[in-house]
Amino acid sequence: MHDVLGELGIDPDTVLVIRDRELLTREDRVSDEDVIEVRPVISGGARPTRMKCRRCKAPAIVELRRHNAAFCRGCFLRHVREQVKRAIEAYDMLGPSDRVLVAVSGGKDSLALWDVLLDLGYRADGLYLGLGIGEYSSRSAEVARSFALERRAGLVEVDLARDYGFDIPTAGRKGSRSTCAVCGLSKRYVFNRAAREGGYDVIATGHNLDDEAATLLGNTLRWQTDYIARQFPVLEAEEGLARKVKPLFRLSELETAAYAFLRGIDYVVEECPLVSGNTQLRYKEAMNRLESTSPGTKAQFFFGYLERAAPLFAEQDAVELAPCERCGQPTTGRFCAFCRAQAQILGERLGEPRAGGKEQGDRLGAPPAAADERAEREVVANLSEEVLPVEIYGTTAR
Amino acid sequence: MHDVLGELGIDPDTVLVIRDRELLTREDRVSDEDVIEVRPVISGGARPTRMKCRRCKAPAIVELRRHNAAFCRGCFLRHVREQVKRAIEAYDMLGPSDRVLVAVSGGKDSLALWDVLLDLGYRADGLYLGLGIGEYSSRSAEVARSFALERRAGLVEVDLARDYGFDIPTAGRKGSRSTCAVCGLSKRYVFNRAAREGGYDVIATGHNLDDEAATLLGNTLRWQTDYIARQFPVLEAEEGLARKVKPLFRLSELETAAYAFLRGIDYVVEECPLVSGNTQLRYKEAMNRLESTSPGTKAQFFFGYLERAAPLFAEQDAVELAPCERCGQPTTGRFCAFCRAQAQILGERLGEPRAGGKEQGDRLGAPPAAADERAEREVVANLSEEVLPVEIYGTTAR
Repeated sequence: MHDVLGELGIDPDTVLVIRDRELLTREDRVSDEDVIEVRPVISGGARPTRMKCRRCKAPAIVELRRHNAAFCRGCFLRHVREQVKRAIEAYDMLGPSDRVLVAVSGGKDSLALWDVLLDLGYRADGLYLGLGIGEYSSRSAEVARSFALERRAGLVEVDLARDYGFDIPTAGRKGSRSTCAVCGLSKRYVFNRAAREGGYDVIATGHNLDDEAATLLGNTLRWQTDYIARQFPVLEAEEGLARKVKPLFRLSELETAAYAFLRGIDYVVEECPLVSGNTQLRYKEAMNRLESTSPGTKAQFFFGYLERAAPLFAEQDAVELAPCERCGQPTTGRFCAFCRAQAQILGERLGEPRAGGKEQGDRLGAPPAAADERAEREVVANLSEEVLPVEIYGTTAR
Repeated sequence: MHDVLGELGIDPDTVLVIRDRELLTREDRVSDEDVIEVRPVISGGARPTRMKCRRCKAPAIVELRRHNAAFCRGCFLRHVREQVKRAIEAYDMLGPSDRVLVAVSGGKDSLALWDVLLDLGYRADGLYLGLGIGEYSSRSAEVARSFALERRAGLVEVDLARDYGFDIPTAGRKGSRSTCAVCGLSKRYVFNRAAREGGYDVIATGHNLDDEAATLLGNTLRWQTDYIARQFPVLEAEEGLARKVKPLFRLSELETAAYAFLRGIDYVVEECPLVSGNTQLRYKEAMNRLESTSPGTKAQFFFGYLERAAPLFAEQDAVELAPCERCGQPTTGRFCAFCRAQAQILGERLGEPRAGGKEQGDRLGAPPAAADERAEREVVANLSEEVLPVEIYGTTAR
């Protein structure tokens, strides 16, 4: 198997190799008749081998190089749950009676998260946001619905086109923001609103260690100290803002992918077709290269930040939030970024300009100076949905 | 030329292409008879093109993508000198009457630095340290001497084997430190001692932007907050420690290489034969990849650190320095790290253990606990010679 991947020029650390619903290791032999699925995990830091399970000494099926460990199926699933429990406990993320809303994209991370939370006994409903990205979105909706049905869990559905009048491809074409920026903005907005309106205590997102490390790298390369300060596994609730937690931050992308596969979860393997060239992917690539020669680099980087550096960045100015004059969600301006984007995309007028004409609210959005500043913020916000613009998440947790 | 490099799989951003002592651009045509030198600059962020000089509109020979500019020979040399002047002024590095000691390895950076400082009218002597690394060292000594002769500048020579009884290959074999670690330690030690004993006001080293960005990346991936704090273009003098400055920190590796070439400086192109696999090179590689898709990444990262992040890291505890009981150079312990390494390499005894036996000074160096801690520090110190162990540079400048 190792030779086959070598011929194909595939880094064995970045894929799951599957034959007949079984994971193959580097050392497994394959014949000409075998149909093999090489399933990208986008990125990762571990690979399957013929080693023995660290816990029970049975043959291992997943190797985690940064832990210098390997696990059999059962012990690997246990390992994943343990890591999630550890994250939840260390940051006091969830209480047993909390109503949790899991932001579900249909990908491996969000479905794995939902699955683990249900198994751990949390009251976790899903939230699916329809983005209107053709086949990709319909398939995503499908897997989210069938997971909910199978697990008898609640699923809140919001559809951007139906409920807000635009879809993401249209927003990318018509809006002044990039497609990824307006998508991230819409997600943050809808997640928060749905959580508040549905009476949920907390939003859980499926950001994994690779996501967090790549985002931190991007923010650090620019020394965006305010974004760095806000990149925490928990963002506490504040006026108008729901609590947000990231229980998968201790698990790599390969671990969440292997977990979802081993649990038989049907997830959307394809990446969003609009995402190509995303800066975030370049940061993931850079981290993966470093990880491949020094396993543990990502964990050292992100956990080291949490332990030693986060306190240095924590003293950021809090911003004042007030309800958006249109939708009532919290914002630093008169209208929130989502309403401004929506009005621009739909060609609507957002209220009357205030006296002096220096306020947001004109048809084209904010005046030039503020627009520049916002554009710069959005380049960064673009990197990842958890890089939160001050308009939505103003202050730092912890 | 672009096609030729493509066939060879060479990134045109990382080499100087030379025919008959002339730089070639991507667009230049070459014939079968041409003898072409493709000279690595190790790494870089710019490439030559057929653009016009930004200043004088003559045909350009060097393109600097991160400046979105290109220069002819004369204006490029001027640009390099301007960047050095700007660095010196911004950080108040050198005064007109200062006696400057330039640490000269024989490579492009240190010779370019010496050259620029002499041209700017500074009283700059060179310091060459013989490391005893075979052909590499003898060639380095040669270019340092012939540069000094040509420019009628003073050259201080120290030879590790002659003056301290060991060379670097021996130290790598016999010592407990890695070769790069003991080499870095020896350089820092000798530079400081030579500067103090020769009555120099300041040591100047040839660290360029690529060096600084790669070191900062390594230190940041580990969140080594004390090393991050110390990575400044100026380290002020303190008890027993000479002032240190890095006037090339605004220039990329490709800029210093092009400068040295265009000025006709004979420099050692080869890397040290012992350096392969150096962690620092992996960080440079990572930065170069990011730079190639986003020109300016390195500058944004390092300058952004200096402007916005350095103050956050600046509050480190100062360490107490006292003279080494053997050589009198400053140290945090009883004997300095250099004397301990030297004693170990030469199999000598370093003084008598103090009562209680918990002091450094026994034949094998420090006791286990301290040795562990030191070993960990040295992994980091290893990254680059300007990552300064507390034993030599204890506190932060500014």
